Amino acid sequence: MLKNVQYMEKPEEEDLKQRLKRAREKLAGQQMLLKDHKVPVLVLVEGWGTAGKGSLIGDLIQNIDPRFFKVAPMDRPSEEEQRKPFLCRYFSKIPEAGKFMFLDSGWMDELTGMCLHGGISQKTYEQRIDSIRRFERQLTDNGYLVIKFFCHISQKEQKKRIKELTGNIDTKWRVSEDDRWQNKHYEKCELVFDRYLEDTHAPSAPWYVIDAKSQKWAELQALEILTQGIEIALQNQSLAVPLLQNVFPLVKMPKLSEIALDQTIEEGEYKSELKRLQSQLQELHNRLYRMKVPVVILYEGWDAAGKGGNIKRITEALDPRGFEVHPIASPEPHEKARHYLWRFWTRLPKTGHIAIFDRSWYGRVMVERLEGFCSENDWKRAYNEMNEFEKELHDWGAVIIKFWVQIDKDTQLERFENRRDTPEKRWKITDEDWRNRAKWDVYEEAVDEMIEKTSTSYAPWHILESVDKKYARIKALKIVIEEIQKALKE
Amino acid sequence: MLKNVQYMEKPEEEDLKQRLKRAREKLAGQQMLLKDHKVPVLVLVEGWGTAGKGSLIGDLIQNIDPRFFKVAPMDRPSEEEQRKPFLCRYFSKIPEAGKFMFLDSGWMDELTGMCLHGGISQKTYEQRIDSIRRFERQLTDNGYLVIKFFCHISQKEQKKRIKELTGNIDTKWRVSEDDRWQNKHYEKCELVFDRYLEDTHAPSAPWYVIDAKSQKWAELQALEILTQGIEIALQNQSLAVPLLQNVFPLVKMPKLSEIALDQTIEEGEYKSELKRLQSQLQELHNRLYRMKVPVVILYEGWDAAGKGGNIKRITEALDPRGFEVHPIASPEPHEKARHYLWRFWTRLPKTGHIAIFDRSWYGRVMVERLEGFCSENDWKRAYNEMNEFEKELHDWGAVIIKFWVQIDKDTQLERFENRRDTPEKRWKITDEDWRNRAKWDVYEEAVDEMIEKTSTSYAPWHILESVDKKYARIKALKIVIEEIQKALKE
Repeated sequence: MLKNVQYMEKPEEEDLKQRLKRAREKLAGQQMLLKDHKVPVLVLVEGWGTAGKGSLIGDLIQNIDPRFFKVAPMDRPSEEEQRKPFLCRYFSKIPEAGKFMFLDSGWMDELTGMCLHGGISQKTYEQRIDSIRRFERQLTDNGYLVIKFFCHISQKEQKKRIKELTGNIDTKWRVSEDDRWQNKHYEKCELVFDRYLEDTHAPSAPWYVIDAKSQKWAELQALEILTQGIEIALQNQSLAVPLLQNVFPLVKMPKLSEIALDQTIEEGEYKSELKRLQSQLQELHNRLYRMKVPVVILYEGWDAAGKGGNIKRITEALDPRGFEVHPIASPEPHEKARHYLWRFWTRLPKTGHIAIFDRSWYGRVMVERLEGFCSENDWKRAYNEMNEFEKELHDWGAVIIKFWVQIDKDTQLERFENRRDTPEKRWKITDEDWRNRAKWDVYEEAVDEMIEKTSTSYAPWHILESVDKKYARIKALKIVIEEIQKALKE
Repeated sequence: MLKNVQYMEKPEEEDLKQRLKRAREKLAGQQMLLKDHKVPVLVLVEGWGTAGKGSLIGDLIQNIDPRFFKVAPMDRPSEEEQRKPFLCRYFSKIPEAGKFMFLDSGWMDELTGMCLHGGISQKTYEQRIDSIRRFERQLTDNGYLVIKFFCHISQKEQKKRIKELTGNIDTKWRVSEDDRWQNKHYEKCELVFDRYLEDTHAPSAPWYVIDAKSQKWAELQALEILTQGIEIALQNQSLAVPLLQNVFPLVKMPKLSEIALDQTIEEGEYKSELKRLQSQLQELHNRLYRMKVPVVILYEGWDAAGKGGNIKRITEALDPRGFEVHPIASPEPHEKARHYLWRFWTRLPKTGHIAIFDRSWYGRVMVERLEGFCSENDWKRAYNEMNEFEKELHDWGAVIIKFWVQIDKDTQLERFENRRDTPEKRWKITDEDWRNRAKWDVYEEAVDEMIEKTSTSYAPWHILESVDKKYARIKALKIVIEEIQKALKE
């Protein structure tokens, strides 16, 4: 790409000024349209050291009201960030609907840096490329405008800039060791950059190479490409996108109606088992912590199935400094304004920690599907998106445990009535619970489809038969222990 | 992809039957919707020999009215087809808006076949992959639904089928040498197929791998994927797509207003030059023919600029068996119903032949742009699409000569008035010519943009100053001769 790239033709000074003026006004005018159409815009600015990425962003944002944009300079990942999945710190930065996010270098810089400075195998490189493609595709599939700039300068120009910047006491700090290294190994860098650009040049999120030799000219190129991209995004409302074939290994699961629910456990056995398993889990939690294995546990299930009590029996065994429970209700406005997985990406545990989700991203294919909170294309696409998400977690080394807490309709009624009739339990039952209950059959169909399509070998669903809640608790503990043991043995 | 592919879960016999019934009815019901929404559907069926590609297509079309579909079994390219660009025979098969085209293997089979049976360098492979990506992207960008199936069977299954088919006198003919070869070199084929699938798996035209072990089950998978794809395509009306950065080398061109038009040629010189150049061209045409170099010449220019007379001076020198002139008017209904480049792809010359286009694909960014016959996104995208198209022609080895025949506004008026006032010339002037003349300024702007954005180094525009038509004729002849000579020398 770099070898063949052809910039727009650089205009004469006077023409450049006029076009800059027009483009700046155009961008300023597009702000409110983006807001009205709820289109989020992610602008990734990558490029050579000293190519002027920061200045370019500085120029672009002059035209945008501060309420509508953010800028994130992405340095090398912090220690905390290194304990999250590769893409986590980028996903957490995605803009809200109707707003801009400018990233001063990002996932390209991180990955090509790893390629150039060793420590990455071909296999890992390819895995990262897959992750990045999926990430960008998930964004554009979900209505994001993703504009990717690469600021290009020649080796000679870079050398000149390094010399000039270094020669001045006020600008010396702006030249990094890496900039110097790049200039010395320009051709090698160019090969790595070029391969990356080719590998991630997608029709829906293409690369734009900017001639960064002069700042005003770079600004004009970026402005014209950006405003044109916005214009196109504004034309596309509630776009539907092709549903991809599942490429993840699935395990066969029963339908809910096929699950026997007559399991029980005797009180004495329950107590002794609970004690034994909890102390085993406690010991494992310490080892997890030392071995830096992250664990993600999520609970889904019918109302009144006993999720809360089940979670409690797990957390009782855990060191409070090493886990967090995330109760998931309907999204806050700032969450709703982003990709639906954003609020989960930003709640991931660090390595060695445990995150427990009381309800989860699977709301997309249950409540959001059935209540019409997202389009049909959205929820149909979500099975794959969630498998992709969990694949990221798996590749990062996480243990993923997904529980479906199952009861029958009569048991639910019994528990609802008990809650209704017991004053101190009454807060636990709402009108919404009754309304959901009325839709049991359509929910059951949706749950069957969800379990069928998202039981991957690396993140299968586990059914907890919870008519006898105690039985379900013991089963959950056993599964958690078993899965953690497996991970620690690997 | 093949290694990781996960099929949908195969249902039990009874369930399969019911789902087949539903899917067939759904496809039948979608026919009229596709017609109403004018969506063209291209279904490419690739896969292993004996995997049942033909039977699958046979099953699918049972649900579609014969008025709405065509099937093209793509054999190895004929000798005639081999004298056209690689993609030509595929482009010529694209369906009309609202109709289906089923291709029984296609560009994948052709390219992977070349990989497997030698005779293709890594460089050519990559060039073809680029061509294919552009081809598929041009289709989906222009509103085509492109569904790509790969029918997958195991080596064992293939072996079994070959044995069974060969054992029966009636089916013996269905096993080709290539099928046997594939089965013997299954792993090698799998690698090549897999690389190809990865290389061409685009978000807008993804691959779907079909488990082709049982015919009914394969039909169900294909039907469900196809109907789902149609459903999604129907939701997207007049989609706008990102405009890609130009990656083709451009040459700098003057604006029309900067072109001096005072050149003339003296009558005596004209006559002797014409004679000399025409006989030179005649001789070159013979050599072109022998060397099998194809030539594409196109003329654009103002009304009454003298295109016809200019073309005549070229063709006078040519052997009528080796050239064709294509006058391009507004598209016929069957042409309008397809990608706008279709009527040009299907008019390409064979190697060794010359095609002269009197007006051309550039109508997209002139009349179609200015009269609103296509959307803004359409014509803005077209510069790149036409550069891509001409790149295909160039890579195929064609000489591409593009003429803009230039006159000034006063000269046009003089010629219009002369036509109007001369009875035998009156047919040459229409009301539309006068209407177009009234829009001279916006046309001039569009022509300037066209010339700037599509003067690639491999297919630059040549300006013919045609106030003195004779001067323009001599200049055209010289350019044609020079360009052909360059190509013959290479």
